[in-house]
Amino acid sequence: MRTQLISAFFALLISVSANAAEPLSLWQDSPARTAIIKFVTATTTSGSPDYLPPAQRVAVFDNDGTLWSEQPMYFQGFFLFDRLRELAPQHPEWATQEPYASALKGDYKKVLAGGEKSVTTLLMATHAGMTADEFSAIVDRWIHTASHPTLKHHYNELVYAPMLEVMTYLRANGYKTFIVSGGGVEFMRVFAEETYGVPPEQVIGSSIKTRFEMRDGKPVIERLPEIDFIDDGPGKPVGIARYIGRKPVIAFGNSDGDLQMLQYTTGGNGPHLGLIVHHTDAVREFIYDRQSPVGKLDKALDAAPANGWILIDMKTDWKKIYPFQ
Amino acid sequence: MRTQLISAFFALLISVSANAAEPLSLWQDSPARTAIIKFVTATTTSGSPDYLPPAQRVAVFDNDGTLWSEQPMYFQGFFLFDRLRELAPQHPEWATQEPYASALKGDYKKVLAGGEKSVTTLLMATHAGMTADEFSAIVDRWIHTASHPTLKHHYNELVYAPMLEVMTYLRANGYKTFIVSGGGVEFMRVFAEETYGVPPEQVIGSSIKTRFEMRDGKPVIERLPEIDFIDDGPGKPVGIARYIGRKPVIAFGNSDGDLQMLQYTTGGNGPHLGLIVHHTDAVREFIYDRQSPVGKLDKALDAAPANGWILIDMKTDWKKIYPFQ
Repeated sequence: MRTQLISAFFALLISVSANAAEPLSLWQDSPARTAIIKFVTATTTSGSPDYLPPAQRVAVFDNDGTLWSEQPMYFQGFFLFDRLRELAPQHPEWATQEPYASALKGDYKKVLAGGEKSVTTLLMATHAGMTADEFSAIVDRWIHTASHPTLKHHYNELVYAPMLEVMTYLRANGYKTFIVSGGGVEFMRVFAEETYGVPPEQVIGSSIKTRFEMRDGKPVIERLPEIDFIDDGPGKPVGIARYIGRKPVIAFGNSDGDLQMLQYTTGGNGPHLGLIVHHTDAVREFIYDRQSPVGKLDKALDAAPANGWILIDMKTDWKKIYPFQ
Repeated sequence: MRTQLISAFFALLISVSANAAEPLSLWQDSPARTAIIKFVTATTTSGSPDYLPPAQRVAVFDNDGTLWSEQPMYFQGFFLFDRLRELAPQHPEWATQEPYASALKGDYKKVLAGGEKSVTTLLMATHAGMTADEFSAIVDRWIHTASHPTLKHHYNELVYAPMLEVMTYLRANGYKTFIVSGGGVEFMRVFAEETYGVPPEQVIGSSIKTRFEMRDGKPVIERLPEIDFIDDGPGKPVGIARYIGRKPVIAFGNSDGDLQMLQYTTGGNGPHLGLIVHHTDAVREFIYDRQSPVGKLDKALDAAPANGWILIDMKTDWKKIYPFQ
C-alpha cells in the first residue's frame, strides 16, 4: 500500500512537470509543430468541440522512414543480408545457387532483379524455420551489435528524436501510439518497446504464418516459410481494422505505402490529422521522394494538399534528427 | 492542469480504497480464489522471487463459457439466426433453399448436419457483404435488444460476475487483460469494452478477410465472404503470438478449445497460472463438460491435474453467477 501511494505521488509530480515544459522542443516553430499541438489541445481539452474521450485517442505511425531511417535500404534488409552471411557456412551450396550467391556477394541489385520470388526465398531462409523465441533472440542480438554501413551507428539509434518526442507528447495526453509498418511484426517487436516505448501488442506489421506445437513437452510457436499478411499500402487500413479495431485520428507516414492509412485516418467525420515526413535533409539524413526505390513518396505527395495532410520538412522543421546528434 | 491534478488525486483515492477492500468478494474461499490471490501477490510484490514487471503481466481469457454463457448454443449463433430472420424478407429464395430454409424454421440440428459448408454459408450471409462500420452497428443494435430464449436477458447481461471481478482485480494490479476467443473479433469488440472493460485492440478472435477501398471519397473496410483466421484450439497460441507478441502468464479457459492456450501459457519457465471454469451449476447456469456439443471439456479436463491447472467449480466457488442475480 505504501509503495503504491508513493508511486502514485511521483506519477503525479512527473505528470505536472511534463506538462509545465514547452512541448515539442526539438521542433522549429513550423506548420507541422503548430498543427500537432493545436490538434492535441483541441482533442484533449474538455468542453472543446473536438474533444475525444481517451478511448478514441489512437495515433498510428509508419516505421521505416517515419520513425527511423530507411536508406540506402530498409533496415530489415540489412538484417536479412547479415543473417544470410551468418548462416552461409552451414550452406556451402549457396556459393553457387541463386539468389543466395548474389546476396552473399552483396550484389543487391541482382537479387532485386530476380523480383519477388528471389526476395521471398531469401526472406524465408532468414526469417522462417525457427521458433518465435529463437527468431526474437536472433534479432535482439543483431539490433544491439550490427551497425549501419555509412552512418556507423546501431540501427535503433537511427531514430528521429523529434518523432520520439511526438510519441511521448501524445502518450502524455492520453493517446495510445501504434506502429503500423510494412516491416515484419516480430522483427519490430524486439526493439519497439525499448526504442519507441510501444509495447508488442501495439506493433502491427507484415507477418509469416506460424504454427503451435508441443515439442518435448514445451510449447513453441514455429515460424513457417509462407507469407501471412502484407501490412503495406491498402493492407495498412486492413491491419489497423484487424489489430486495433478502431479508426485512428492521427497518422504519420512518409511514403506511398502510407497513402491508404492516411486516407483511412483522415477520410471520415470527426477530428483527424495526417502528416507526412518529407526527407529533405541531404546533410543530416537523406534527401529523396518521387524517384527513390525505397520509401517512394509520389502519389501521397500529390494527394497531400487536397486532403490537408501536413508535410514535415525534416531540414527546416527539426532542430536535430538523431538522438545522438 | 488543474483537471489533471484533480483526476490524478481521485485516481489515487480510488486505488487506495480498491486495495483496502477484500479482493474477489464474489468468490467463496476456494482453491481457485486462493490460487489467484496468491499468484497476483507473488507476481506484483517487489522483491518476490516471482515478481513480474508490469510489461509481463499479461492475462488471457476465453470468452464463450469463460466470461459469458454459451448454452444452448454460442451466443454468436443466436446473432446469426436472428440476423437471418431479419434479412429473410429481402431473400424470398431462402424459403426453399438450404441451408437457409432449415435455419429460418429454427431447425438448427438440420443446419449443423450440413456440416462446415452449411455453417459457413450462413456465416457469410450474415457476417460479410457490408462494411466494418455497418457490421458493428448491426451487432450493437442486436446486443442491446435481443434476449436469450430461456434466460430472458440481453446476452451481455449473461456474463459471470466473479470473472468480471477477477478482470478488475488483475487490472488494478497492473495486468493487461486480453480476450482470446473462437468468436468473431469484430463481433466481440462491439461490446467488449462496455461489458468487460477490454478495449478493441485487446480482443483477439476469429476473423474473415477484409478489403480497404475509397467509396464515393469515403474510406471503408469491406467485409469479404472468406475465412481469414480461426482463433480456436492450436489457433489460440498463434493468435496470441500474432496479436500480443508476448506469452501470457495467466490463462482462463473452459473447454478443449482452450487446451493449447493453457499449454502455451503454463508450459514454459517463470511464474504462470492456468484455470478452467467448470460448468457444474444446473440451477443457476448450466451443467456440462465431456458430452456437450458446445464448450466440450474433455481433453483439457484430463490434462488439468498433471499441468497444475485449477478447476473453478461454478456451483461451489461462486457466490453468484450473473451480475443481476
